[in-house]
Amino acid sequence: MAEEPIQDVAHLGHAELLSPKPEESLWFFKEMLGMEEAAREGRSVYLRAYGDFDSNTLKLTEAENAGLGHTAWRTFSPQALDRRVQALEKSGRGKGWIEGDIGHGPAYQFEDPDGHLMEVYYEAEKYRPSESERPALKNQPQNYPNRGVGVRRLDHVNVLCQEVTSNREFMEEHLGFKLRENVVLDDGTEAGAWISVTPLAHDIAYTLDATNSNGRLHHVAYWCDNREDLLRAADIFLENGVYIETGPSKHAVTQGFFLYVYEPGGNRVEIFSGGYLIFSPDHEPVTWTQAERAKGQAWGLSLPESFHTYGTPVMDAATETKDIPVFDPV
Amino acid sequence: MAEEPIQDVAHLGHAELLSPKPEESLWFFKEMLGMEEAAREGRSVYLRAYGDFDSNTLKLTEAENAGLGHTAWRTFSPQALDRRVQALEKSGRGKGWIEGDIGHGPAYQFEDPDGHLMEVYYEAEKYRPSESERPALKNQPQNYPNRGVGVRRLDHVNVLCQEVTSNREFMEEHLGFKLRENVVLDDGTEAGAWISVTPLAHDIAYTLDATNSNGRLHHVAYWCDNREDLLRAADIFLENGVYIETGPSKHAVTQGFFLYVYEPGGNRVEIFSGGYLIFSPDHEPVTWTQAERAKGQAWGLSLPESFHTYGTPVMDAATETKDIPVFDPV
Amino acid sequence: MAEEPIQDVAHLGHAELLSPKPEESLWFFKEMLGMEEAAREGRSVYLRAYGDFDSNTLKLTEAENAGLGHTAWRTFSPQALDRRVQALEKSGRGKGWIEGDIGHGPAYQFEDPDGHLMEVYYEAEKYRPSESERPALKNQPQNYPNRGVGVRRLDHVNVLCQEVTSNREFMEEHLGFKLRENVVLDDGTEAGAWISVTPLAHDIAYTLDATNSNGRLHHVAYWCDNREDLLRAADIFLENGVYIETGPSKHAVTQGFFLYVYEPGGNRVEIFSGGYLIFSPDHEPVTWTQAERAKGQAWGLSLPESFHTYGTPVMDAATETKDIPVFDPV
Amino acid sequence: MAEEPIQDVAHLGHAELLSPKPEESLWFFKEMLGMEEAAREGRSVYLRAYGDFDSNTLKLTEAENAGLGHTAWRTFSPQALDRRVQALEKSGRGKGWIEGDIGHGPAYQFEDPDGHLMEVYYEAEKYRPSESERPALKNQPQNYPNRGVGVRRLDHVNVLCQEVTSNREFMEEHLGFKLRENVVLDDGTEAGAWISVTPLAHDIAYTLDATNSNGRLHHVAYWCDNREDLLRAADIFLENGVYIETGPSKHAVTQGFFLYVYEPGGNRVEIFSGGYLIFSPDHEPVTWTQAERAKGQAWGLSLPESFHTYGTPVMDAATETKDIPVFDPV
Repeated sequence: MAEEPIQDVAHLGHAELLSPKPEESLWFFKEMLGMEEAAREGRSVYLRAYGDFDSNTLKLTEAENAGLGHTAWRTFSPQALDRRVQALEKSGRGKGWIEGDIGHGPAYQFEDPDGHLMEVYYEAEKYRPSESERPALKNQPQNYPNRGVGVRRLDHVNVLCQEVTSNREFMEEHLGFKLRENVVLDDGTEAGAWISVTPLAHDIAYTLDATNSNGRLHHVAYWCDNREDLLRAADIFLENGVYIETGPSKHAVTQGFFLYVYEPGGNRVEIFSGGYLIFSPDHEPVTWTQAERAKGQAWGLSLPESFHTYGTPVMDAATETKDIPVFDPV
Repeated sequence: MAEEPIQDVAHLGHAELLSPKPEESLWFFKEMLGMEEAAREGRSVYLRAYGDFDSNTLKLTEAENAGLGHTAWRTFSPQALDRRVQALEKSGRGKGWIEGDIGHGPAYQFEDPDGHLMEVYYEAEKYRPSESERPALKNQPQNYPNRGVGVRRLDHVNVLCQEVTSNREFMEEHLGFKLRENVVLDDGTEAGAWISVTPLAHDIAYTLDATNSNGRLHHVAYWCDNREDLLRAADIFLENGVYIETGPSKHAVTQGFFLYVYEPGGNRVEIFSGGYLIFSPDHEPVTWTQAERAKGQAWGLSLPESFHTYGTPVMDAATETKDIPVFDPV
Repeated sequence: MAEEPIQDVAHLGHAELLSPKPEESLWFFKEMLGMEEAAREGRSVYLRAYGDFDSNTLKLTEAENAGLGHTAWRTFSPQALDRRVQALEKSGRGKGWIEGDIGHGPAYQFEDPDGHLMEVYYEAEKYRPSESERPALKNQPQNYPNRGVGVRRLDHVNVLCQEVTSNREFMEEHLGFKLRENVVLDDGTEAGAWISVTPLAHDIAYTLDATNSNGRLHHVAYWCDNREDLLRAADIFLENGVYIETGPSKHAVTQGFFLYVYEPGGNRVEIFSGGYLIFSPDHEPVTWTQAERAKGQAWGLSLPESFHTYGTPVMDAATETKDIPVFDPV
Repeated sequence: MAEEPIQDVAHLGHAELLSPKPEESLWFFKEMLGMEEAAREGRSVYLRAYGDFDSNTLKLTEAENAGLGHTAWRTFSPQALDRRVQALEKSGRGKGWIEGDIGHGPAYQFEDPDGHLMEVYYEAEKYRPSESERPALKNQPQNYPNRGVGVRRLDHVNVLCQEVTSNREFMEEHLGFKLRENVVLDDGTEAGAWISVTPLAHDIAYTLDATNSNGRLHHVAYWCDNREDLLRAADIFLENGVYIETGPSKHAVTQGFFLYVYEPGGNRVEIFSGGYLIFSPDHEPVTWTQAERAKGQAWGLSLPESFHTYGTPVMDAATETKDIPVFDPV
């Protein structure tokens, strides 16, 4: 009888974005996405979407360069946290405990093979609405905002890396992630992997970095309930000068309905809806070939060149990029 | 340190509906909902929605009266199945093993306190599309149907019972369900409970039966990705003479976007979208008071009287019904 | 050869609403509907929706009681205006010229048989966006608002009357309105008439007043491009305490997708989408029988009692109401 | 006082498409778009959408090459038809009367300056539903189809031409079309013109033919009520192997929500929704500059090269194309 699956990591807890333009970035998340400021401390502002149950899901930190500060995973229980910390320590990639940011308790830090800083934690603070934020429906943590897109909750992160397989395997082995979909090139290279601990088709994705850099971010994604929310979001971004890179359209991989913009600090942010849920314990991963991915997105859309090269921190213009024949080359 | 949660039941696997008009019911599920016939055996037809990953999720069986044949839960692993069977045997409500219907392996049968027949199983057959059913996107089990509503997957069941609390506690204790939302009347009676093992706000709901009957069905629900699918579904039902009981509109409880119809055999079927996902391991259940529920559905809609009394098997017209002051009394 | 149709009235130009709570009403139209303040003069504030091409479409005037101040129709040309004024003078219902409100030139006032004050005019001022209101797309008069529902343009008015037929015929004969749909009761009474000069299924509707009053308003309607805008609007109204009377759902008559609320001053406002366009010059009016209307709205919804009795000015609670067996009596 | 506008042409009545693959084209319009076959005669099949009030709006004719057979405009009255025929005769582009196709009476044929065959007519046959096509709502000509996209009605045609201005002016002067939007290049060339007799932003558009050919078709467009219908349509086309050229996305010009496919005969067909209505008699045309159009579609999408060169009849691969710097050059 096969070993039982690891079921210790519950979900993506929060992400930290670095911004060289903190005021403009804050405007973007509050006025454009409709998120709420939860707290401020030092050079960081903590934010949440109206449907996030925890006190915050985004830490926005002033920094010289844009990028991903860290990614945090919440476990199902204190015991589950202990098991994961033990595994991470054995992996040689553990960095030790920190006290925890605003909104959560002690966290154990580690780095994935590509060098992205991550942490696991259990103790977390629930959001309690103030009188003015009290929702009409009590099963919703907060009232629906009367401004901006109205994103509902943090959905996933997508990070760039030099090698997909080693990162994916690290997340599977030590944290219990399951491979949902990946892209394997004709030469056998795994060009992208979409993995999750939840029924979402991905809580995190690893894709090849065309610049051979380490630790870069492709995008952070917030969820909207309806595709129409993304069509409306595109109009809001258009009216307010937010750079739309591509979308709204439908991905083939994950079937997600997407809209990609750059927040003023330079980080790519996705507004995401649709996709599908995986409840089966033995769901079979879907592997896309190079030829299949060459068909473009679900409805044939070719993504712009920048989608395959741009990440944060932004590379020098002189950086040589390699051509990764995935997604939708012409 | 608190005990770790039971994480053995993965999801609702399938449901069996009984129909005194099997041909008409089959027409409804195939032509109106856009589902596919997977197999036939004896007096049963097995069906699936285009996005169901397993070989079937609905067993439609000819019978004298409409109603719910059984409800089946799939576990995460063989070990998990063993643990649940042990627990169920201890509960005194176990009935023993059966060989398993088309599409799944051995199943252990039991009854909930109200007498609804249920089963747990692990082995299941994945759906393999025929050439004509092959999807354009390989992460989708089958092509999107070119007829009917196009429901995507089985979502949940809602059963009537004489007493909510004992049924809820049985499902929590023996199967690891978590309470997500419930309604508690002014006299302390629990009038409804929405519980789940997945991040969905309910995989099953128990609500009071106004006729004091046992083992009745309120509805089975199939999921659509978009609220617009339900608005379009209403037009399709209207054009084809399918009885619309209420909707499309938005529930307060679960925030689900709903449309209720009666399939020709008499069973209530819900087309469901929206709602919200719960990833937190320590999510706090939401309890609605009698006064709160008296406000009607999310946008103030009052459900028709039949919504509170009608279930299958259908009771004799002479059956006395009691007034349960929940949902949205006038 | 039949006479040629009158094609002199181009469209509904604007409407004036009276409010005993002008500040609260202004909040509703600006913060809830996302409309813009165009001008102020005396006890009136002039407003426009982001897609209205004229300088304003709503005059909101402080008054002791809620109600409809006047309704204004724009002609295709100065010559067309002259012809209509001549016809109105002959009708005996003309009241004479006024200088014209902010945003338009001289207007000729008249009363319909039920006593609703109306006017016709030709000269109108186009809206010119300020720098901060400049739209990203130059074929849109103004930028899409980042607050509220975001209604696009004035759509229609619905007025109550003691007798439908005489009012409908007056509008047909003197202004060139065409009957699109009506309801005729079993006793031959015309209970409602939907008429238009544009391809919209109604620019104005006349329906029987259950209180036998004169000159009352049923509702003013603003248009949204998408049904999803109305679903989102319902959430916004719910969160902000705006009274939702009924909807969102679909009308049988006109096939409009509707959402009815009461603005704080007491006037019923509809958010409207969908419906259908009539381009045929010889379109055949659709007459609904009492039995047909007894089926409720398109998807079977029964409208609340207030929908058939409430109008502005609000009648005294002691006012006797008659039962008009239309729309969807129980 | 300015002259009164010509108000004689009521709407686009129908269009004739030529197809070298008539069976496959018929499958496309019936099974993919959900249209109905109205009649057959000779090498033609007549079709209609479920919301078309006339007996047919599309004549599909077998021919050696794909292309536009003719475009037909219905007038407001017999008198209006007389006036237009007189004007067309004077223009020197009149061709004389024909008896009329199935569904309409005598039609006067003419050619626009670029050589597209057109006709004007008044007498037209209304659609009368058969028992099986009877709609649930009597203000809808026919029941909503339970297959395919479910397009509602014919919307517009877009034709290619060697010179935009002369064609636009011909349609304005002789038929009363009004210019709604156009594109004027830096060198003063009018590269596209969107004109209408109805409140739609275009009933027909003229755009430059990159191959310097005459009389070619860019696309015929059918309307859907909702943007979601186009998102669903894209999935249906994807599943059934219909070539998607671009979309769904939003145009800047006309603000239309679009999806372009090639029907099996080779003609480009647009599924169209959204846009805006023009009721003002003195609406100011919107002129887009070369720089403004270089920004791509509304949300920044660049259309594929084929969108600027492909038309029907299809040109030989050896045909030299000129670069027209409009829409969204790279």
